[in-house]
Amino acid sequence: MSSFADDFGIDDLPVRDELRGKSPYGAPQLDVPVRLNTNENPYPLPEALVERITERVRDAARHLNRYPDRDAVELRTELAAYLTKTGKYVVDTENVWAANGSNEVIQQLLQTFGGPGRTAIGFEPSYSMHALISRGTGTGWLSGPRNDDFTIDTAAAEKAIAEHRPDVVFITTPNNPTGNAVPPATVLALYEAAQTARAATGGAMVVVDEAYVEFSHGDSLLPLLEGRPNLVVSRTMSKAFGAAGLRLGYLAAHPAVVDAVQLVRLPYHLSAVTQATALAALEHTDTLLGYVEQLKTERDRLVAELRALGFEVTESDANFVQFGRFDGASGSHEAWRQILDRGVLVRDNGVPGWLRVTAGTPAENDAFLDAARELPTSARATPAPPKEQNA
Amino acid sequence: MSSFADDFGIDDLPVRDELRGKSPYGAPQLDVPVRLNTNENPYPLPEALVERITERVRDAARHLNRYPDRDAVELRTELAAYLTKTGKYVVDTENVWAANGSNEVIQQLLQTFGGPGRTAIGFEPSYSMHALISRGTGTGWLSGPRNDDFTIDTAAAEKAIAEHRPDVVFITTPNNPTGNAVPPATVLALYEAAQTARAATGGAMVVVDEAYVEFSHGDSLLPLLEGRPNLVVSRTMSKAFGAAGLRLGYLAAHPAVVDAVQLVRLPYHLSAVTQATALAALEHTDTLLGYVEQLKTERDRLVAELRALGFEVTESDANFVQFGRFDGASGSHEAWRQILDRGVLVRDNGVPGWLRVTAGTPAENDAFLDAARELPTSARATPAPPKEQNA
Repeated sequence: MSSFADDFGIDDLPVRDELRGKSPYGAPQLDVPVRLNTNENPYPLPEALVERITERVRDAARHLNRYPDRDAVELRTELAAYLTKTGKYVVDTENVWAANGSNEVIQQLLQTFGGPGRTAIGFEPSYSMHALISRGTGTGWLSGPRNDDFTIDTAAAEKAIAEHRPDVVFITTPNNPTGNAVPPATVLALYEAAQTARAATGGAMVVVDEAYVEFSHGDSLLPLLEGRPNLVVSRTMSKAFGAAGLRLGYLAAHPAVVDAVQLVRLPYHLSAVTQATALAALEHTDTLLGYVEQLKTERDRLVAELRALGFEVTESDANFVQFGRFDGASGSHEAWRQILDRGVLVRDNGVPGWLRVTAGTPAENDAFLDAARELPTSARATPAPPKEQNA
Repeated sequence: MSSFADDFGIDDLPVRDELRGKSPYGAPQLDVPVRLNTNENPYPLPEALVERITERVRDAARHLNRYPDRDAVELRTELAAYLTKTGKYVVDTENVWAANGSNEVIQQLLQTFGGPGRTAIGFEPSYSMHALISRGTGTGWLSGPRNDDFTIDTAAAEKAIAEHRPDVVFITTPNNPTGNAVPPATVLALYEAAQTARAATGGAMVVVDEAYVEFSHGDSLLPLLEGRPNLVVSRTMSKAFGAAGLRLGYLAAHPAVVDAVQLVRLPYHLSAVTQATALAALEHTDTLLGYVEQLKTERDRLVAELRALGFEVTESDANFVQFGRFDGASGSHEAWRQILDRGVLVRDNGVPGWLRVTAGTPAENDAFLDAARELPTSARATPAPPKEQNA
């Protein structure tokens, strides 16, 4: 295809106006020794699980000429069993839906309950794909408030919901990139506020994004599903199951929600090899949750040591830690670069004054802490204010 | 989750109005001996390829805790090499994009070039997901005309394009469910018509869906990409590669199109196991294309034998055959049921008077032909009109 003019680009194509000048989403992929930037689990899958995956994929490959189970019934059954075992709440196959990453789960939810003429709200900073997928599905996006310590002010959030009457409410807990969990009472209050605000149109959907919940000091909010058909809990196997490469997200909700997303899902969206690999990983849940316990210990160590170094640190219930407070956006970017110069990649999520570091292996975390120790004293936080210490 | 009222359903949720009363798309999945209803390749992957898949997946599984290559560069490079080898046109990595099935490719194209306030046109009957994904992305859908013999009337199609000025034009060739290919001259004429109609807004995108092109008597339309940056050729590994379970669709186009769809793709949409499995299959292209040759022979046999039995048969360049002509929608449905009673599942695509049968193994095709032979004489076609014989 050599005959095209070299300078023909995106803007010469009839792309949608709102895409012009945009860049694709994604963290920079740099080749550095220690990558603590995308909240990946640092522990490779155990070799016994690798072998189990190959066995299951071998079986699936022998039928690969056929379409996969369109409804992924076996996988949803095993995901339901995992949630029941760990979530203090009984979940059945009909309560679970799965897709290619929680991003596709969220996209299907927004195609069903959002879309043109509708709006979604999130409390930012939070997982930025909520806003991006809202825009990608034509759903209006509303940015709700957070306190300076990144907690959600329940009264202010209720007010925003009452005023804007969103069709979909996103609550990320533990929150990404800040790390802190949202108290159940706040989730309940926002659920009620959303139902009241849209009482005339059948209520609003509330999506609790629990991508990191296995790393939490507290429990999953799954029991809140009881009697709340407009509540959805979304999950992923990317983090706790150490399977970011698998792209397996799922949700738990009332069976009617599972029925509804099937109206917009692309048929046969979940490949036979994905289903086989996920089923193998679910057989090794206990081992993988053991790694989670190690990561929780390391996460707590990162929090303690960063504080000891004089940094301000947000409470974390996730597998990452948000630290600062640098001098605005330029300060955090400069600190990001200095840490990178020492071979450690952390994430600048665009929260001015703050960076996010994923809990890695003990050696990776040591490398990060060594780099953090070398940051100029002027780059460190002023002593944390009392509010933050008690958050 | 036992406390919910049993009668709470989709319509009690705040789903989008246009989804109310709809059912999920998908062929009925019935447990019958001979399944010739979803255009699957009847030949399981050869055992050597199954082993190669397990080797590649084993390697991928050892890094599954990391996100996959977001841009799938190795896979796109091998897909480009395959297209170059078979398509009589040089395609590079930067010309290729891949996703979870051609359905996701189409969805990404419509999110980029269609969407709210824009329209797409297809010439029906054709692949019904074009219309469904248009609606799913908020893109208006226009149903263009076909002749009684299911060819596209170029002049009538040009007129429809000039009148409705669609942003996206779908041309399926070979067409599904009818089986006939669209002449290159028609594709060129519709491309020009679409650019003229939308000249004021940078032209229109024309998507040539070549899901079945490996089964064609003729060549791929890939060479038409030369000098036509608004043209897209979409492909799949589901049919010729015998990998419907893999869900791997891809496209070839100007690099600017590949850049553009990355503005809407979900990050890390393509799992590491999918990429590994697809790469393994591409190593076995020659073997798999050998199966395609066998299926082409069987497809031609189905056409000949059905005609000998007195059925009307649409010319086929695909791995399936459309036959009739039954007495309207009720006639084709009754014939579908009678064939099913003999253990053979074919597809009623909702084209009144016609059914579609996938070319299976010789034994499967014999079973189907035996069932067709038993259809009452009254259910068979009247002698085909001259126009059809020459199509």
